[in-house]
Amino acid sequence: MKNYHKLSRKEAEELYSDLLAKYNSYKSRGLSLDLSRGKPNSDQLDISDGLLSIDMSRELSKTLEGFDCRNYGILDGVPEAKHLFGDLLGLNPDNIIVAGNSSLQLMYDALMRAMVFGTCDSKTPWCRENGLKWICVAPGYDRHFKITEDLGFELLTVKMTESGPDMDEVERLALDPKVKGIWCVPKYSNPTGNTYSDETVRRLASMKCGAHDFRIMWDNAYAIHAFGDKDDELLDIFAEAEKCGNQNRVLYFASTSKVTLPGSGVAIVAASDDNIAEIKRHMGTQTIGYDKINQLRHVEYFKSIENVMKHMKKLGAAIKVKFDITLNALSILDGLEIAKWTKPYGGYFISLDITLGSAARVYELMKNAGVTLTKVGATYPYGKDPEDKNLRIAPTYPKDTDLALACEILTLTVRMSALEKILST
Amino acid sequence: MKNYHKLSRKEAEELYSDLLAKYNSYKSRGLSLDLSRGKPNSDQLDISDGLLSIDMSRELSKTLEGFDCRNYGILDGVPEAKHLFGDLLGLNPDNIIVAGNSSLQLMYDALMRAMVFGTCDSKTPWCRENGLKWICVAPGYDRHFKITEDLGFELLTVKMTESGPDMDEVERLALDPKVKGIWCVPKYSNPTGNTYSDETVRRLASMKCGAHDFRIMWDNAYAIHAFGDKDDELLDIFAEAEKCGNQNRVLYFASTSKVTLPGSGVAIVAASDDNIAEIKRHMGTQTIGYDKINQLRHVEYFKSIENVMKHMKKLGAAIKVKFDITLNALSILDGLEIAKWTKPYGGYFISLDITLGSAARVYELMKNAGVTLTKVGATYPYGKDPEDKNLRIAPTYPKDTDLALACEILTLTVRMSALEKILST
Repeated sequence: MKNYHKLSRKEAEELYSDLLAKYNSYKSRGLSLDLSRGKPNSDQLDISDGLLSIDMSRELSKTLEGFDCRNYGILDGVPEAKHLFGDLLGLNPDNIIVAGNSSLQLMYDALMRAMVFGTCDSKTPWCRENGLKWICVAPGYDRHFKITEDLGFELLTVKMTESGPDMDEVERLALDPKVKGIWCVPKYSNPTGNTYSDETVRRLASMKCGAHDFRIMWDNAYAIHAFGDKDDELLDIFAEAEKCGNQNRVLYFASTSKVTLPGSGVAIVAASDDNIAEIKRHMGTQTIGYDKINQLRHVEYFKSIENVMKHMKKLGAAIKVKFDITLNALSILDGLEIAKWTKPYGGYFISLDITLGSAARVYELMKNAGVTLTKVGATYPYGKDPEDKNLRIAPTYPKDTDLALACEILTLTVRMSALEKILST
Repeated sequence: MKNYHKLSRKEAEELYSDLLAKYNSYKSRGLSLDLSRGKPNSDQLDISDGLLSIDMSRELSKTLEGFDCRNYGILDGVPEAKHLFGDLLGLNPDNIIVAGNSSLQLMYDALMRAMVFGTCDSKTPWCRENGLKWICVAPGYDRHFKITEDLGFELLTVKMTESGPDMDEVERLALDPKVKGIWCVPKYSNPTGNTYSDETVRRLASMKCGAHDFRIMWDNAYAIHAFGDKDDELLDIFAEAEKCGNQNRVLYFASTSKVTLPGSGVAIVAASDDNIAEIKRHMGTQTIGYDKINQLRHVEYFKSIENVMKHMKKLGAAIKVKFDITLNALSILDGLEIAKWTKPYGGYFISLDITLGSAARVYELMKNAGVTLTKVGATYPYGKDPEDKNLRIAPTYPKDTDLALACEILTLTVRMSALEKILST
């Protein structure tokens, strides 16, 4: 394919006219397609249906130690669930709390507690301090940004690179005592699919922070979510943080939302001894305990980490089809020098950068042709992409044929928007 | 039985010596019994075992409208669960949010939001105000008190009477703009088993409050928990509050923790339109949604409110046995003028007042004989019973024979402690 920037004006005009004709023919079909939703489709959910068929009455409702999980008790999760998550994620079971169905809720609750009570390293509740700031790696996860926005933090944008956040910038910002933390999706990051390099993890764990109660919100949502033969390796941030005595800095989150069922999975928070003690102290006032039967249901369904990994192979195969369709469609843009996109080994998203800064125009063209994209800017703090470049592609939810069609229209509109830019200069 | 206060010194000494001999013989048996735990025993839990046996895969994981509940979505609960709770409790389904397994968590989260963001009627987040206070009706529920204690409220104790809180005192305190709310268990109150009278409900709904964002935390935990033929009637507080334009004052909570399973039930919050909108606005940042499969599981298990009430009859019959054993044992204290206790038609507890103020001594004697009581003072703010009178008896958990034995020792120690007081004056 020819570099668009080397087209003559005439070539560009002719090309645009061709693309527009195609676009209009798609438009006339009255389509209704959706590339916006980072959720599994029903085929992927069916893989976990066995989970919902288990009869959890009688013996299965008891822990190995004989505790009756139908009843009140066990604040921090059943031991067998702690061990399963510990084995899967390389975490010490003693430093894990197994909770309800939402890791987002655990993150939100952790920051709400910090606001009202402070952390175990705070001199004062955060709500007593003024002008607090938070580092957001962008493009990133809109729901993370929204939490800290609602809590009144000033959001500081740091660029996501292939090896993780721009660490020079993170280290510079973290020196400010008003900067209280950073959101991280360290593996198969939402939406770029990148994994933080060892150096990035080391620098995050060891960097100097102005705030003694700085927190890294380590949302390892895609820890076991490679969908092909290759898998990224993520360094153990706790081990690195401990080396520098910074173990309280890390709050680690994960869930089975994209392992079993997003509506009915199990979520965890893992942290240092001090943090876990502090969390339990307040959590024990918030609740008598989470749904232990659902924790045991997951343990019974999987029984071993080998079975979890077998399950993830099945799920990965289903998801890989979607990524292959999307990447195959995007390859028509190769060499045009108008877009860049990520080719992750795992996770849930492809991040598409529209080089000339016309993401909003692509979104509009797509919308007019009946294809919903994730809202432009959603991957940036305050919903504003300063360069109007980034689009988050979520390939998992549509049917294969719908996905292929939507991606075809996507590449068409990307080309159209680029030519519009080129022709207008 | 003879009034202890009319015993001669000799009679009292002889009686004490008899009781002590009996007590020592119990003590020598090395018992380990527990009257402290407000939780169902396994026989009561077995009644709900059908809930855990339902195969929730395929069609059952969808709402009537066809929404796939295995997936993300539906923040405020599945419609059929809203309708079931609405019918059961006489609430408008549109004003209900169906959430996770814990109503305590919903209460805690509501107050955390008030601290950080304020309510829909607040001018400022509560954490920005100083010297805030909260009304605690005592004897009451320790976990309620603990929440507001942790949040830094000064706890104001108001006496529980047979018709609910001492309303003269509540009305007086509520005039203070620093007083932000009150905890209420309006029906079969924990631990007295009393139900608020119509007048009490009306006065709570209509009283003048100094704080415009005053909140009644209406924990209707035992709404359908009559265990015999008689049932108390509780006035609809929303209807009363609306009459005075005070509908935002009430946050109503309930759960199936003591209907199905305390570990794996479903909880709700009900409130005015303004409150519901405000809750959803923040809850939508906290979570993508609660466990909808467990909501549907409850709907599938019960199908109708008639079935819920049949279920509660079964459960009530099992619980009535425990209350009968306890009340039968306590009747030995009739006429002695050393103790008073409640005889509720429903709920979970019996409240025993030791007239001479030696609850701590009873606790100690019981402990030394191997019987655990709820910690003395637990039913009061800060865990301190100013008159050292109240003991909360939780009869549901022990086996019948254990319960009978524990109650026998209880009445023995109540008599001993009374005689000790009488003999020491």
